[in-house]
Amino acid sequence: MFNNLHEECGVFGIFEPKTSYVAQSVYLALYALQHRGQESCGIAVNDDGVFTHHKGNGLVPDVFTQDKLEHLGMGNIAIGHVRYSTTGGKNINNVQPLVIRHIKGNLALAHNGNLVNAMEIRKSFELNGGIFHGTSDTESIAYEIVSNRLSCKSTEEAIKKAMPNLKGAYSCVVMTATKLIAFRDPNGFRPLCFGKTADGAICVSSESCALDTVGAKIIRDVLPGEIITIDSNGIHSDKTHCKSNGNLCVFEYIYFARPDSIIDGASVEHARMRAGAFLAKESPVDADIVIGVPDSGLDAALGYANESGIPYGIGFIKNRYIGRSFIQPNQSQREDAVRIKLNVIKENIKGKRVIMIDDSIVRGTTCARIVNLLREAGAKEVHMRVSSPPFKHPCYFGTDVDSQENLIACKYNSVEEIAKVIGVDSLAYLSVESTHKLAESASTHCCDGCFTGKYPIEVPKEQPKDKFEEKISKTSSYYQVLD
Amino acid sequence: MFNNLHEECGVFGIFEPKTSYVAQSVYLALYALQHRGQESCGIAVNDDGVFTHHKGNGLVPDVFTQDKLEHLGMGNIAIGHVRYSTTGGKNINNVQPLVIRHIKGNLALAHNGNLVNAMEIRKSFELNGGIFHGTSDTESIAYEIVSNRLSCKSTEEAIKKAMPNLKGAYSCVVMTATKLIAFRDPNGFRPLCFGKTADGAICVSSESCALDTVGAKIIRDVLPGEIITIDSNGIHSDKTHCKSNGNLCVFEYIYFARPDSIIDGASVEHARMRAGAFLAKESPVDADIVIGVPDSGLDAALGYANESGIPYGIGFIKNRYIGRSFIQPNQSQREDAVRIKLNVIKENIKGKRVIMIDDSIVRGTTCARIVNLLREAGAKEVHMRVSSPPFKHPCYFGTDVDSQENLIACKYNSVEEIAKVIGVDSLAYLSVESTHKLAESASTHCCDGCFTGKYPIEVPKEQPKDKFEEKISKTSSYYQVLD
Amino acid sequence: MFNNLHEECGVFGIFEPKTSYVAQSVYLALYALQHRGQESCGIAVNDDGVFTHHKGNGLVPDVFTQDKLEHLGMGNIAIGHVRYSTTGGKNINNVQPLVIRHIKGNLALAHNGNLVNAMEIRKSFELNGGIFHGTSDTESIAYEIVSNRLSCKSTEEAIKKAMPNLKGAYSCVVMTATKLIAFRDPNGFRPLCFGKTADGAICVSSESCALDTVGAKIIRDVLPGEIITIDSNGIHSDKTHCKSNGNLCVFEYIYFARPDSIIDGASVEHARMRAGAFLAKESPVDADIVIGVPDSGLDAALGYANESGIPYGIGFIKNRYIGRSFIQPNQSQREDAVRIKLNVIKENIKGKRVIMIDDSIVRGTTCARIVNLLREAGAKEVHMRVSSPPFKHPCYFGTDVDSQENLIACKYNSVEEIAKVIGVDSLAYLSVESTHKLAESASTHCCDGCFTGKYPIEVPKEQPKDKFEEKISKTSSYYQVLD
Amino acid sequence: MFNNLHEECGVFGIFEPKTSYVAQSVYLALYALQHRGQESCGIAVNDDGVFTHHKGNGLVPDVFTQDKLEHLGMGNIAIGHVRYSTTGGKNINNVQPLVIRHIKGNLALAHNGNLVNAMEIRKSFELNGGIFHGTSDTESIAYEIVSNRLSCKSTEEAIKKAMPNLKGAYSCVVMTATKLIAFRDPNGFRPLCFGKTADGAICVSSESCALDTVGAKIIRDVLPGEIITIDSNGIHSDKTHCKSNGNLCVFEYIYFARPDSIIDGASVEHARMRAGAFLAKESPVDADIVIGVPDSGLDAALGYANESGIPYGIGFIKNRYIGRSFIQPNQSQREDAVRIKLNVIKENIKGKRVIMIDDSIVRGTTCARIVNLLREAGAKEVHMRVSSPPFKHPCYFGTDVDSQENLIACKYNSVEEIAKVIGVDSLAYLSVESTHKLAESASTHCCDGCFTGKYPIEVPKEQPKDKFEEKISKTSSYYQVLD
Repeated sequence: MFNNLHEECGVFGIFEPKTSYVAQSVYLALYALQHRGQESCGIAVNDDGVFTHHKGNGLVPDVFTQDKLEHLGMGNIAIGHVRYSTTGGKNINNVQPLVIRHIKGNLALAHNGNLVNAMEIRKSFELNGGIFHGTSDTESIAYEIVSNRLSCKSTEEAIKKAMPNLKGAYSCVVMTATKLIAFRDPNGFRPLCFGKTADGAICVSSESCALDTVGAKIIRDVLPGEIITIDSNGIHSDKTHCKSNGNLCVFEYIYFARPDSIIDGASVEHARMRAGAFLAKESPVDADIVIGVPDSGLDAALGYANESGIPYGIGFIKNRYIGRSFIQPNQSQREDAVRIKLNVIKENIKGKRVIMIDDSIVRGTTCARIVNLLREAGAKEVHMRVSSPPFKHPCYFGTDVDSQENLIACKYNSVEEIAKVIGVDSLAYLSVESTHKLAESASTHCCDGCFTGKYPIEVPKEQPKDKFEEKISKTSSYYQVLD
Repeated sequence: MFNNLHEECGVFGIFEPKTSYVAQSVYLALYALQHRGQESCGIAVNDDGVFTHHKGNGLVPDVFTQDKLEHLGMGNIAIGHVRYSTTGGKNINNVQPLVIRHIKGNLALAHNGNLVNAMEIRKSFELNGGIFHGTSDTESIAYEIVSNRLSCKSTEEAIKKAMPNLKGAYSCVVMTATKLIAFRDPNGFRPLCFGKTADGAICVSSESCALDTVGAKIIRDVLPGEIITIDSNGIHSDKTHCKSNGNLCVFEYIYFARPDSIIDGASVEHARMRAGAFLAKESPVDADIVIGVPDSGLDAALGYANESGIPYGIGFIKNRYIGRSFIQPNQSQREDAVRIKLNVIKENIKGKRVIMIDDSIVRGTTCARIVNLLREAGAKEVHMRVSSPPFKHPCYFGTDVDSQENLIACKYNSVEEIAKVIGVDSLAYLSVESTHKLAESASTHCCDGCFTGKYPIEVPKEQPKDKFEEKISKTSSYYQVLD
Repeated sequence: MFNNLHEECGVFGIFEPKTSYVAQSVYLALYALQHRGQESCGIAVNDDGVFTHHKGNGLVPDVFTQDKLEHLGMGNIAIGHVRYSTTGGKNINNVQPLVIRHIKGNLALAHNGNLVNAMEIRKSFELNGGIFHGTSDTESIAYEIVSNRLSCKSTEEAIKKAMPNLKGAYSCVVMTATKLIAFRDPNGFRPLCFGKTADGAICVSSESCALDTVGAKIIRDVLPGEIITIDSNGIHSDKTHCKSNGNLCVFEYIYFARPDSIIDGASVEHARMRAGAFLAKESPVDADIVIGVPDSGLDAALGYANESGIPYGIGFIKNRYIGRSFIQPNQSQREDAVRIKLNVIKENIKGKRVIMIDDSIVRGTTCARIVNLLREAGAKEVHMRVSSPPFKHPCYFGTDVDSQENLIACKYNSVEEIAKVIGVDSLAYLSVESTHKLAESASTHCCDGCFTGKYPIEVPKEQPKDKFEEKISKTSSYYQVLD
Repeated sequence: MFNNLHEECGVFGIFEPKTSYVAQSVYLALYALQHRGQESCGIAVNDDGVFTHHKGNGLVPDVFTQDKLEHLGMGNIAIGHVRYSTTGGKNINNVQPLVIRHIKGNLALAHNGNLVNAMEIRKSFELNGGIFHGTSDTESIAYEIVSNRLSCKSTEEAIKKAMPNLKGAYSCVVMTATKLIAFRDPNGFRPLCFGKTADGAICVSSESCALDTVGAKIIRDVLPGEIITIDSNGIHSDKTHCKSNGNLCVFEYIYFARPDSIIDGASVEHARMRAGAFLAKESPVDADIVIGVPDSGLDAALGYANESGIPYGIGFIKNRYIGRSFIQPNQSQREDAVRIKLNVIKENIKGKRVIMIDDSIVRGTTCARIVNLLREAGAKEVHMRVSSPPFKHPCYFGTDVDSQENLIACKYNSVEEIAKVIGVDSLAYLSVESTHKLAESASTHCCDGCFTGKYPIEVPKEQPKDKFEEKISKTSSYYQVLD
């Protein structure tokens, strides 16, 4: 809401020991993963080799009415996807899961992440007569798997052979006539884990919170580079491409993931509390109350309060009813969007020195308005603490960061200047060093490219994904040979 | 969600100094009051004596699309209403505001509360040829006003003359061709306040949080028994029926109202924090963490933690996307409703002695499932503290309490028995005495009839509102003379 | 479609010998009566005295989804209504059936027609404290019945007592706890008939085509002035107010009713064929083909062809898919509305002398465009024959005629001038005398006020219904005493 | 409605001399072609090489709301499609136009017809790594064009090279970055024509009625085997594959096409009148009235009446409001579907000897019910005449004929037996010889395979399209190698 950082997807897959209304579990899981993508969603169900799917633009409840859910029928394997797309392009052909047919039968694919070499892959297939229906990199992954499948004796082998050609971030689930396959790129930029229900169903999910929702206990995370194959013979792991500890996007801990998820062995909620505690140590300030900006700043605020000994309090109430159908008023100055969505609990703020915690500052405009609400409510001082370092660089691995000319941390040279712009008495960000200590127990390292500009793999000289999509939608600028 | 206590309505009115898109402000206000009624809503706009209205079943965003909102056009007075109805009867004729025409012109009425003598009033008008379109008591209020209006020189005078005939709870806003009128019953069972925007618009609202949303500063509460008339000459107060401090429903502080509202001079959030603190004093227990059941138990949990010195923590994450369109799965035991909506943050619970705070226990079944989630997550002990006394009696003034045979506090004789049923190691309720101290600074006394069975005014021998509605919908049991 | 003459309503009622899904029959009947009103519709069902109803703006399929139809449940009596309203005022409070409660129980009312003294009645009740919810004259009928009911021993007696106060057109069905009552004003301006199914259900309907649809055989028409009461004792007739042969609106035969209906004993289709035959005798012309403007001109065209011996042919194809949701293009001259809806069968027109029949000309603009289509298709001559006399006067009895300044027959002095404006080689209207001979076997006389300005009862000096509605919606111009 | 013969598609394309709201013209055209496919539809727009499209299941007004139509924006080329699919498979991936990207840019394709070798083509591409998204044969056409495009210097040349590989029926429009291309298979099974508007826009359409709707004058039909290319240089024709007069599906004249269309030079309406006249000559019978079953039997009835001298009359009124949202009642015997949709004009039938004309008999059940309506209305004799020969064989070229076990003409050996089953006094079909004389002036011959079992090209031994779709949706029965 107050943040234009966006995760780009969530994936889920389930393999039931016997035929059931398997789509219902995926439906529940997509609700639990909805925070990872709110633009479109879909479910594909496998009933003895026959695939049925439904997908559309909108939230899970918009796309899946009772009718649509029932239409998916029964089956024993299913996968689902929630999606946020960077461009206006709500092209229905890009909505996942991608469900296709090839020489060896049906295949469905759901992907979280972003390839850096999607364009090269695409071109190579097109030069061989390949046809693409959408503009997403997911179709490139499908082509790589399908073409390798011709000479491999199984889909998992085709995936293994394809992986070296796929550069970038991909946490995927694939469904074939008889198997559910999960694989994660060697850096493990995006999370992926799996678990088991009491009935013996195996579930693969972007986050463990969706496992909890369907009553599955987490087994472990899919390792960076690992391929997990689930079929009637059980679970098989292929670690050929597992080479390092990987580099999980640090923003999964700071903002994207749900606090009740455990990612690569570390609790997200604890990571956020720790971010608050590190901030309290790095940038202490004397004050009367510590508040968080709902919802993403609340955990860090509690961590800051516990570490500093300054009381934790509720600063804002967020209106839970304002959703997609809210009609923005345009009539009057007095009705600004922030005021409608957030209201200050004045009794907690009036005459107080306030420490306000948020997870990030992107453009700074919303932030300035929130600070103003505190001033109006009578705050004596407002000190802002941000539980992440300043954003300065693009992400190539599936996070939609605003363009650099809009980022407040790129526009101004010093934290003091930014503090002035947003109207706070003091401002401090979390240090880059501390971000590496957030997930104490995590098995993976972190990617901090958006803060440092240093990326774990080579990135294109050009801009990331959205520019690519723009290009390929316009025939004339993409290829020399026109028709 | 986990509670079948229900407020029955929220009202809002605005008088603008000049013609504008006045419905937009009411629309915003209804969003801020949505928690008071989620079943239906409506807005009526006055453009120089011509009334336009739109109402329907559903939440504000369901009923008010861009089209419908625009259709309301401009005007300088408007009123709105959100409604929860006790019976299945989502009779569209009961949706408010009630917009009628009588000999002196148009009149619109929005009502929060419940009359105890609605049936008597109705009968007296019917014996004179009166026609009723719905089954709500609001139509009885309208008839009283309209019939008194014949012999009064103004609507506010008609209201004053009508009030002695209206027994029970009513916080109302009325719109005529030229005036906005607000009045509150002499007990002030339901809240009502008014404020002013920087542009000079006067707003009347069930709660102050809606004033904040439209940028109005609160002036004060409408007093129990007071009639406030707003027209082009300003604000006029008539206190003829103001006789006592009144008896505000104590559940407004405990559960119904939004924490950011100030009611009769007292902060709701503070009242809830205080409830937690009183609990900590009355029923201390040694433990490792204090958690609240979201959202209504969070404030009291923080109050308990602060008072007891036991750390406050986050116990549950609530899924914010599950709304009206969620399709309940029916397939499998493992997918229960509570698990889908709430997930435990296991790292905070495992191996801990937990104090869990909620605002009330109605039937106890949901409560037992939540406790079970904590047990599954590895809680060593679970101590429940409830920030209200046990419910034992019906409410006649606009709260929908479950029938007595369903109330856990009626079914079992002791707190210990209840503790056993819901599976906690210890259980304690807030004392009735403490409920009177929650809103320290409040100008009104409280009604605690649902805890004590002692009501501030005489109540019918029969059951409350819902039974009445059932009766009048069935011709044959209501009147002897059949047709 | 090409005509702004509008019927204002259709009514239907059914009394089943035993409880059943009675709403389904009404639903079917409303489909059969849909041509009489396309703006809103509703059904009320009586289940042993408990009334359930649903109504809304739109066509029958828009308002009655499966859900809504099922919600109406079972019962043994039901009534329904389709409505067209003259003003923009799609006020939901005006949608019928009107379902109310009074001292003797529930009552539902559906009305086709228009009172000329609705305002006087309204005022008299308002002076006694009466409340009105909508602006329609139907509420005035309800008040008359309810107030008389206080001193009458049955509803049918109350209706009998009320009828002398009701001036104008009203064909009504009324449902009480135990009875279905139908009554028709003493002039019988609008049709009303009743029939019986093989199972013994009695149905009352505006037109006999709806009886056919539900499998009922027509018994006879309700006589002008007659009250028919149906209850468990059978059918009872009261003819106290039957005084004359009545004056059925002649446009029922010419345009409004469905050709397969029998009204007051005469076949509508035959009446239209006869109109064509009279035209052929009154205004013969030599030509190669006779065509009708679909759909309302087709029967008269066949009648003309048969009488004249000139071959009948198909001149136009009408696009059946263009409905309410059609989006009118605004881009280009070449896409005009008439061309989209009607297409000429060129092979039938090219090089021919064409006689084109339509039922009426209102403004003449659409007519001119249709003639132009024939010219473009190569018609050598176009002779238009209209199966009604020219409109020149308002209707006070439920037909929505355009205002006089728009009527082509008021704007021009001679038929020759009109012929020039619409671009035909010759033009002739049916004579007023012939309209009285259309329904040869009919038991009622005709009202031809819209052609002659002579009305069977006294009419108000002011304009009809729509002006009235406009007035009462604006408080300030209706009453002197303002509030 | 009373017929389960189905056309499978309609196509339309437009090339505007300059950028405009080109989608609006396609929208209008699809309304005019809606009778050719009512299951799904779509439009693709080309704005300087950028393709935008929208498609969905449902009628044109269901799929194209104002919003969706506006979303398509401006452009100078656009194509559209309406579709009926034979299988339950309303697979959204099969909805056309197919919009894809390949090495030479964007390409959109709309297809009417059915390939007999789609499966072979599909297999050959899959063996090369090809991916298919749907189950329709249209994707096979796209692959053939795209793969040939790699070695051709233009799309039209690629189409020319592809055509010998495409066996069966295909009338297609293709849109590239700069061109609109139309092509028709060498047999010309399905119609395709083109025309020009006054503004210079070139339009291609399945039927000329859509040209009329958008204000375009027909230039001529696309010849069987011809490729027409439209770009900024004008219209270019390639007749390389034009070999014969072709074999247009005779059912286009008898039933599918709109009567106001001209196909291959012959008027559809005249063809139907001639069918009636031939019937009158071949199978005369003495009677009082000739009626048609609406709408498809009306023209032939008029032709029969004119030829026989027996008066033409209106026998049935069809309810125009019954559409997709109609809820079929299930309660009672008396409410059968036929009675709801058709009502007899009893005055025209009672005591008469009736000749009833319809265009075909498929299963005979609906037919029997219609005959029964006439009997109930008092018909003395009912003689049925059918304006086509009996169906006995499957169609492989895009018509959905019922399976042979359901066809009444396959179930019974003689016309007399069929007459008995449907309850008529006499029955006669049109002779196969006469079907070849219907379109007197037509430039193409006819395919009468469904009557004779003799097809113009070799047909598969297996069943047609629907069986194919069923197969490929089930992985395991399609390919030996499973995954």
